[in-house]
Amino acid sequence: MNVTEVSSLYPAERLEAARRATEDAGLDALLVTPGADLRYLTGYQALPLERLTCLVVPAGGEPFLVVPALEKPAAAASPAGALGIGITGFDETDDPYALIARRLPVGTRLFAVDNHMWAEKLLAFQAALPGAQAGLAGDVLSVLRMRKSPAEVAALRRAGAAIDRVHRRIGEWLRPGRTEREVAKDIADAILDAGHACVDFVIVASGPNGASPHHEVSDRVIRTGDPVVVDIGGTTADGYCSDSTRTYAVGEPPAAFRELYEVLLHAQTAQTRAVRPGITAEELDAVGRDIITEAGYGQHFIHRTGHGIGLETHEEPYIVAGSKRALEPGMAFSVEPGIYLPGTFGARIEDIAVCTETGGERLNLTGRDLVVLPG
Amino acid sequence: MNVTEVSSLYPAERLEAARRATEDAGLDALLVTPGADLRYLTGYQALPLERLTCLVVPAGGEPFLVVPALEKPAAAASPAGALGIGITGFDETDDPYALIARRLPVGTRLFAVDNHMWAEKLLAFQAALPGAQAGLAGDVLSVLRMRKSPAEVAALRRAGAAIDRVHRRIGEWLRPGRTEREVAKDIADAILDAGHACVDFVIVASGPNGASPHHEVSDRVIRTGDPVVVDIGGTTADGYCSDSTRTYAVGEPPAAFRELYEVLLHAQTAQTRAVRPGITAEELDAVGRDIITEAGYGQHFIHRTGHGIGLETHEEPYIVAGSKRALEPGMAFSVEPGIYLPGTFGARIEDIAVCTETGGERLNLTGRDLVVLPG
Repeated sequence: MNVTEVSSLYPAERLEAARRATEDAGLDALLVTPGADLRYLTGYQALPLERLTCLVVPAGGEPFLVVPALEKPAAAASPAGALGIGITGFDETDDPYALIARRLPVGTRLFAVDNHMWAEKLLAFQAALPGAQAGLAGDVLSVLRMRKSPAEVAALRRAGAAIDRVHRRIGEWLRPGRTEREVAKDIADAILDAGHACVDFVIVASGPNGASPHHEVSDRVIRTGDPVVVDIGGTTADGYCSDSTRTYAVGEPPAAFRELYEVLLHAQTAQTRAVRPGITAEELDAVGRDIITEAGYGQHFIHRTGHGIGLETHEEPYIVAGSKRALEPGMAFSVEPGIYLPGTFGARIEDIAVCTETGGERLNLTGRDLVVLPG
Repeated sequence: MNVTEVSSLYPAERLEAARRATEDAGLDALLVTPGADLRYLTGYQALPLERLTCLVVPAGGEPFLVVPALEKPAAAASPAGALGIGITGFDETDDPYALIARRLPVGTRLFAVDNHMWAEKLLAFQAALPGAQAGLAGDVLSVLRMRKSPAEVAALRRAGAAIDRVHRRIGEWLRPGRTEREVAKDIADAILDAGHACVDFVIVASGPNGASPHHEVSDRVIRTGDPVVVDIGGTTADGYCSDSTRTYAVGEPPAAFRELYEVLLHAQTAQTRAVRPGITAEELDAVGRDIITEAGYGQHFIHRTGHGIGLETHEEPYIVAGSKRALEPGMAFSVEPGIYLPGTFGARIEDIAVCTETGGERLNLTGRDLVVLPG
């Protein structure tokens, strides 16, 4: 990624937007440790380690970064260094929690930490700030992160195209006589070759394993006639994630599977077409669920329709019953209904969709009709 | 891994040992979410996701696992299923925190969470258990995890041999005219080829970048005469981590670098030889620090000597000034002194060592003399 790409994906305005949102929420400060929130706000991709690295965003002051002394050169060389925020290094025997507590506004009552901050760090902040209450930074940051900028949508589009290239090659690896694990190893290599910087997950769920939505891989040997759920994703070098599921048949599958698949395809197609500004998450969930229920499979669609995606594979907005969140342009999320018959087989079809000004855009463009591979 | 290997790496006795340690520490229960602690206790390798997966170990009762309904088949099929503990699935719209709070012993006052539990989950438990205080499970579990069983030492030995195979091939990739990033990509591929299931980190720090201990990679082109710090590690399929650093010279390095390297080599060799039961972490740290300080480089050794390693790359025991922890047989940790001259160059040598009944065993066995590659 060159400097222009970095600054368009991780613009400096975000820190000020986060500061304002912190103030508006009545919080005194945000405390953000390594992870997607830190990368979103500063472009700094730091590893989560036992030593504290923490961005502090005081509601009424200048943000600053506290890092172990030995990480200071790396932090200064990262995009965070170009933001012009202060970077304080602390030595191996210093207490960085006390250091931050001293630099927070006098009378801090309410601070918020990134949702994935490690418990050991949150408890250390709670101890260093005994009079204050802890909340979640996600309550203010997810609202910002949920609406992707055009540069972020372009990054997700690139990630989607990369994972599509892997699905298009599936026939090279998915054959009777091979184990799920062998197939998954080839897919993992292809995910890297297709332009991802890392493999996030590879699910190859054949035959009855396909009835467990989060089965990963096993030593089960794939047999002729097996339906196989292949749910794969990775993260590109610029930090954005891909995630797409297709269900294949290795040789002609049972008639009952074809019937189930047609219902699922109808549901998923209807849901991706229903994406538009203003529809709520629960309404979008119901579009597919109603179709599946009417076809008699309602009790076998046992999960929500989808999850937001961006710098993390799972983030807001969740497309789930009970969520009255209305979609807005820039929101990106999976549409992945599934039908699972315990002990028999299952199927899932998943595309990433982005809500646009007028409707939706699918970022995964491989065919959704059932692909029957040579058995 | 076959069933015998799983049961020797993840034996059923651990859960009972954890329950006793919980009781002895005066805790009412441990709450353990996906990560190294969960894998250590049950063999269950679950992804950390927004939905709660949690092992509950009550001080006076039977442990049980709470998982999202859609993960239940995967949990039951994992080694955790073979332990015979209860597995409760909850639906998308259930509150699993309330469910666990109801099943904890009446009058629970003190619960401990795994050190890496996400803040959003810890805050949810604090809200669901308003009268109780939260502590860290690491205080009881790290004591167990720190002392590796013979099966675990064997797993770390395999991981060490795998990363050594990568270091032995470094001359294939590290050449003048290539960027750090290009070299790192080749190394990452080799880490997987050498028998790791994933790449954890690849540091290629050439010339002045070597003076930043946690520099990762950049687009800097490697030049003749550059010292290059190569610090690499991965995780094997059985869950154990590797981590080894060698510093290479690409062509003849400056005389000042050779001088610095000899001091470092002397320090690191003395430290690996000093490993034995009873020596404290701070004493072992001092063995190398004193040699480096006497040679006039004291202010340039800016980090601790090392970190424990096992199911995580960084875990207890830390080999650091101020730690009076005495080494015991089975403890495994890095010995990685470094000398860093800002703006000029740096060097680090790192082996994983295991404390034995009588001394220490190095798990990384590539040569430690300076390797000068063709420039």
